[in-house]
Amino acid sequence: MYKAPVDEIAFTLKHVAGMAGALESGALGDLGEDLVDAILSEAGRFATEEVAPLGDVGDRQGSRLVDGKVQTPDGWRDLYHNWIGGGWNGLTAPDEFGGQNLPHMLHVAAMEMWNAGSMAFALGPTLTMGAVDALEKHGSAALKATYLPKMVSGEWTGTMNLTEPHAGSDLGVLKTRAERRDDGSYRIFGQKIFITWGEHDFTDNIVHLVLARLPDAPAGTKGISLFLVPKFLVNDDGSLGERNDLFCHSLEHKLGIHGSPTCTMIYGDGKFGAEKGAIGYLIGEENRGLACMFTMMNNARLAVGMQGVAIADAATQKAIAFAKERTQGKAPGWAGQGMSPIIEHPDVARMLLTMKSLTQGSRAIAYACAHAVDMGHADGAKATYWQERSSLLTPIAKSFATDAGVDVASLGIQVHGGMGFIEETGAARYLRDARIAPIYEGTNGIQAIDLVTRKLPLSGGEHVRGFVAELREIASAVSASNREGFGATAARLDAALDDLSDATEWLLAAVSAGKLSEALAGATAYQRLFGLALTGAYLAKGGLAEASDGKDEQRIALSRFAAENMLAETSALKDRVVTGADSLAAARAVLG
Amino acid sequence: MYKAPVDEIAFTLKHVAGMAGALESGALGDLGEDLVDAILSEAGRFATEEVAPLGDVGDRQGSRLVDGKVQTPDGWRDLYHNWIGGGWNGLTAPDEFGGQNLPHMLHVAAMEMWNAGSMAFALGPTLTMGAVDALEKHGSAALKATYLPKMVSGEWTGTMNLTEPHAGSDLGVLKTRAERRDDGSYRIFGQKIFITWGEHDFTDNIVHLVLARLPDAPAGTKGISLFLVPKFLVNDDGSLGERNDLFCHSLEHKLGIHGSPTCTMIYGDGKFGAEKGAIGYLIGEENRGLACMFTMMNNARLAVGMQGVAIADAATQKAIAFAKERTQGKAPGWAGQGMSPIIEHPDVARMLLTMKSLTQGSRAIAYACAHAVDMGHADGAKATYWQERSSLLTPIAKSFATDAGVDVASLGIQVHGGMGFIEETGAARYLRDARIAPIYEGTNGIQAIDLVTRKLPLSGGEHVRGFVAELREIASAVSASNREGFGATAARLDAALDDLSDATEWLLAAVSAGKLSEALAGATAYQRLFGLALTGAYLAKGGLAEASDGKDEQRIALSRFAAENMLAETSALKDRVVTGADSLAAARAVLG
Repeated sequence: MYKAPVDEIAFTLKHVAGMAGALESGALGDLGEDLVDAILSEAGRFATEEVAPLGDVGDRQGSRLVDGKVQTPDGWRDLYHNWIGGGWNGLTAPDEFGGQNLPHMLHVAAMEMWNAGSMAFALGPTLTMGAVDALEKHGSAALKATYLPKMVSGEWTGTMNLTEPHAGSDLGVLKTRAERRDDGSYRIFGQKIFITWGEHDFTDNIVHLVLARLPDAPAGTKGISLFLVPKFLVNDDGSLGERNDLFCHSLEHKLGIHGSPTCTMIYGDGKFGAEKGAIGYLIGEENRGLACMFTMMNNARLAVGMQGVAIADAATQKAIAFAKERTQGKAPGWAGQGMSPIIEHPDVARMLLTMKSLTQGSRAIAYACAHAVDMGHADGAKATYWQERSSLLTPIAKSFATDAGVDVASLGIQVHGGMGFIEETGAARYLRDARIAPIYEGTNGIQAIDLVTRKLPLSGGEHVRGFVAELREIASAVSASNREGFGATAARLDAALDDLSDATEWLLAAVSAGKLSEALAGATAYQRLFGLALTGAYLAKGGLAEASDGKDEQRIALSRFAAENMLAETSALKDRVVTGADSLAAARAVLG
Repeated sequence: MYKAPVDEIAFTLKHVAGMAGALESGALGDLGEDLVDAILSEAGRFATEEVAPLGDVGDRQGSRLVDGKVQTPDGWRDLYHNWIGGGWNGLTAPDEFGGQNLPHMLHVAAMEMWNAGSMAFALGPTLTMGAVDALEKHGSAALKATYLPKMVSGEWTGTMNLTEPHAGSDLGVLKTRAERRDDGSYRIFGQKIFITWGEHDFTDNIVHLVLARLPDAPAGTKGISLFLVPKFLVNDDGSLGERNDLFCHSLEHKLGIHGSPTCTMIYGDGKFGAEKGAIGYLIGEENRGLACMFTMMNNARLAVGMQGVAIADAATQKAIAFAKERTQGKAPGWAGQGMSPIIEHPDVARMLLTMKSLTQGSRAIAYACAHAVDMGHADGAKATYWQERSSLLTPIAKSFATDAGVDVASLGIQVHGGMGFIEETGAARYLRDARIAPIYEGTNGIQAIDLVTRKLPLSGGEHVRGFVAELREIASAVSASNREGFGATAARLDAALDDLSDATEWLLAAVSAGKLSEALAGATAYQRLFGLALTGAYLAKGGLAEASDGKDEQRIALSRFAAENMLAETSALKDRVVTGADSLAAARAVLG
């Protein structure tokens, strides 16, 4: 069973991602290390003791649609109310609406732990927080006053309604329509699919954020507006009024995250209310909905990255525990009685160390991204620098961590052998759950397009160049440390950073020359190259930290393992970026 | 829906795997190309029209245990009887027992097509064929006369009973016991788990091959005997007699292959018959059961490899079809109306070409292995050479193809985006089904141990060296062809073969020096390196074939794509083999 690795999380936050410096410099206000530790510790306890034990039942039962109502798995409603009772829903929300206004770094660390306990459960609050974000930044004072306090407390949940059957990643073609009413509100008509937690029995009300098009809107993405559409209308005194004209038509039957109801939502079908059309309220300006949506999407992407880290950690813990218990054969050098635990077989140890490296590497990348988000708010003098850093890191964190989630979960099954294929073992659930994360909130291929075409060119390429230079300092410090345990880490990391640098320059030149096909042919390879190089750098940074918690040598050894076993892949990835496009174009005819 | 790629399969058999030469030399007797084509074509038709349409229902319904009986999915019983009616069960079986005595090459090609239609369905016959193999090679004349004709026709099916709860890969510790009876038969007592198609409603009888231990047997693997234990005893006239004392206690709830009942079998519990103990008949000699089991395991490993090829092909076909239909965004250079089909996006094209390369590469490796099996029987002068070749290729075919199955199925989900996560789409089933193949019939880690410690040292390492030299001839021929479309294929392939050669020599030296820990630390990386190099070589060989079927240029382009985009990974893999062991050992403490 998953046990939240609170110490490891705290270490990574403070000594790898930058929280120690931020605390010391006062960038995080009067937040002190004691409070950080207390929050992480309590979040870890809750995740371990309350969320994780309900993960399996959620997977087995799933959420079900019965007579138009969604029944969540046994125990989940109480779990949710205990969770919001702990104040966890409003961790980073503004205090004026009842939030705790804490740094994003703490938020992602806590998100990791909820998701490791049950990704399907934690997904609901992730959506609420995204809706809170969008409403807080773009909503009118009246909307905020009515909705935000209850969404921050968790008394009501929120959703995002983007996708339609014909419009997934390309929102420009969506058809849901909005009609103006005399009182300044709107009526919404249309069908949305893949709406996560669109209907459930946790709360009395659900606040849907819906993208729709006005009758006179320009075509494409410039004609999309964002509306707040509550399940129940809210009276002036804050009490719930009439049922709004929207409902959940059906739930998807999915590979994983069975506890999370994925809804087809119908707006304005006339099922509820005297007049057809779900009543909605404009957020921001008409036809500017996409900008509002992007506000929440950036943080949501990092949140999805946390799901990858979370599954990777949970799967790794489970596999290590199994590999210590299960005995088969005799490993080379095994001197014990009878069969050896399979962890003694070199190939099993390699799988487990690869899993651990990917988990800790992706965690460090994601936390570093959250640190940049926090510093972007806190450090006025360097606001651009930090905003560019978080912009650059977001697609890498999302894609590398979610790919790691899938890869690690798959290795976890392999470590379990035949037992891994049996559902009751629980290893297969991690793969089934993890598999959605590289897809939603923008597929990892879309993240790669974003990385190459929008993030690399920030400050004319100088931001990414500066970042690589910072990473080189880590390699130099490893070299200067003279710690034998690092082995060839410094040289391997330097070589990986050379590959990163070469691939970056090639892509910057290609993008600026308008050679988009060529640049995009290698975008995914580049994204992985960046993630691997960061994994190598951040594991080494952890090894250098001298936390003196008795684990320094282990961190150094893991850093060396990653450097000597995983970083050599960067050369092949660079090669694919720099030389792969022509053969891709030439082979296109093979696909018919 | 899957459509059997009969032309591609025939091409690979003839021009890449060696069938054309074997036909011409007469090594396959009077078998002619016309008959080969007719068999492949009819197998393809059956797989496409009859098996594939029942794949989904098998997944959805699964096989269920109701009142002690296993109910297979709707339509599957009829499907099975149509299939054996076509004579497919006995394709390679000896004609003296009603088989068709055809080459193993045709068998694996047909197996690929059944598995692509439904892996869960095709798995049953795979087990029967393994049992036929073991019985034919090691059974007494009486046993063969009683059981083989009906197992060859498919009137009865067969199973393999190896695993017990505490004994998976390590058979030395199994506890099922056999007691001698006065009439020369035995009584069997014990519990076996993970017994594929151990019980079902297809046939009147099921013939279990069961590993068990005699009371006076030596400890470990030298004390294991193999028994034939029928579900119903067979009277002297061949009619069915009493129910034997064995039954299916329960079915596993698995990640995939839901249609295939995975049984816990109880032997000798006293549920049936007057006296406790399931009656069994010795196959081969007492305490020599493992040797008999290995007879069927080698071919079974290649058969599992075919499952990987099959799923990879089916998943690739599905993803290509979707990517041509689905439109999203505008790809660079897209000049059409509206959104472009996603296949126009470079990243999607790259995923699809990677899927296609892995499918065709693993298919070629598996067919080449089957060719070596056939030549081992046919070519007396070079029997050792061919037997060593099939021995060497078996672990590579099994592991590379089953890893490809998982990777390609996962990419297939990614190509489908959100739809890929919805079960009704069918892409997720491929991943769920594929995930067992790297585990059963010896995990891929065990294949790697076999490859490095038993296969590389064949003929003192000269066999593998000679094989690499043969592969170099392909690179030379590419270079000599002067076909511009090959791009850098020859150079990339040569570099990959350098890596293969270096890693091979390092491992041969390590194994012969008794440095097993070091050798096994990189065994999995080596196995993948070998598979990748073979993929590059066999795709190039296909490109060189000049089949003049209008696809020469496409094969050359795909070969180039694989060479320029995938082969660079061999350098990192070699590195892991040659330098990775020390850091692995040093990091072992990280795992606690």
